[in-house]
Amino acid sequence: MKELKSIEKLTDSFSRLPGVGHKSAEKMAYSVLEMSDEDVELFSNALKDAKKAVHKCPICGTLTEDDICDICSNDSRDKTKIIVVSYPKDVVAFEKLNSYNGKYHVLGGTLSAINGVGIEDLNIDSLLRRIKEDGVKEVIIATNPTTEGETTALYLAKILENFDVNLTRLAYGLPMGGHLEYADALTLSKALEGRKKI
Amino acid sequence: MKELKSIEKLTDSFSRLPGVGHKSAEKMAYSVLEMSDEDVELFSNALKDAKKAVHKCPICGTLTEDDICDICSNDSRDKTKIIVVSYPKDVVAFEKLNSYNGKYHVLGGTLSAINGVGIEDLNIDSLLRRIKEDGVKEVIIATNPTTEGETTALYLAKILENFDVNLTRLAYGLPMGGHLEYADALTLSKALEGRKKI
Repeated sequence: MKELKSIEKLTDSFSRLPGVGHKSAEKMAYSVLEMSDEDVELFSNALKDAKKAVHKCPICGTLTEDDICDICSNDSRDKTKIIVVSYPKDVVAFEKLNSYNGKYHVLGGTLSAINGVGIEDLNIDSLLRRIKEDGVKEVIIATNPTTEGETTALYLAKILENFDVNLTRLAYGLPMGGHLEYADALTLSKALEGRKKI
Repeated sequence: MKELKSIEKLTDSFSRLPGVGHKSAEKMAYSVLEMSDEDVELFSNALKDAKKAVHKCPICGTLTEDDICDICSNDSRDKTKIIVVSYPKDVVAFEKLNSYNGKYHVLGGTLSAINGVGIEDLNIDSLLRRIKEDGVKEVIIATNPTTEGETTALYLAKILENFDVNLTRLAYGLPMGGHLEYADALTLSKALEGRKKI
């Protein structure tokens, strides 16, 4: 049987997604044939639209569809308090709690020798600028509780030593080795509540 | 934080894929933002192209990008032998063996009261026509070894009683409750070899 080129190409695209192996990708590709023309059109456009519409907020580095994200542009939020996270989806996790009224700063990753991520690859300069310009009083470091996340937190702590800010780290309610985005709301709440001075 | 509409739409599309829950779909949607513009463009086009280019072969019902699939249009294959499967991907599984030189017929599903699939939803009339017109001598029923697959096989056996064909069913080398597409080549080979008269 001749291979179906268009199915192969689609399988190839699906297999680039996180956690999707060749067999699953193939299954997904075939399932697209079962969708209505309209759904496939929506799917196809959603891909391009998301890539086009979403970009990083120039102030905090989180993802937004506007010029500046709605957290940075919201004056009723306390700009003297900043939660520092590695990834935009971590901001989403905190916002779901509905209990934090400060701002965020997204580093865009964690220090990692293995993956070749160095200090210059993280959004640190803009964090220091915000601390100075906005009179920030508290910086809560909320990198993932992994080796890389810890290294990043320690590095930040060292840099921020010379700044007059209250520096804290999320409490270890978080299971070690896990990822912030998978924490349930209660665990995340507890971790935020019990945050400790570094 | 304002929800990112384009990410939500994309998440929604991903979650329609088989075996993808909301959390995985969201992760996939975010991962698209990390892809290059070119890769997203390729992905987006691959979806539309596959849906547009691939259709059912009017003779056997398998998927093809041509008018008639290359198995049906290949005169060097034995048209007096037909393997009857439920889905196009089952044809792919058999073709990978490189040991079968007959033709196929794809029913397009299995009889299932629960899913509301009845006799009229399956490609049976065209199978009977092929049997008559092509002087078919052997029909090998290769529906999945599940309750629905068995029901479908028994129903076909009943209809084909009145035809002068050698009717067989794949041997039970296949693990019960499994699906053809996941069988390894050896198991599938053995099942084909040891096929039994119904």
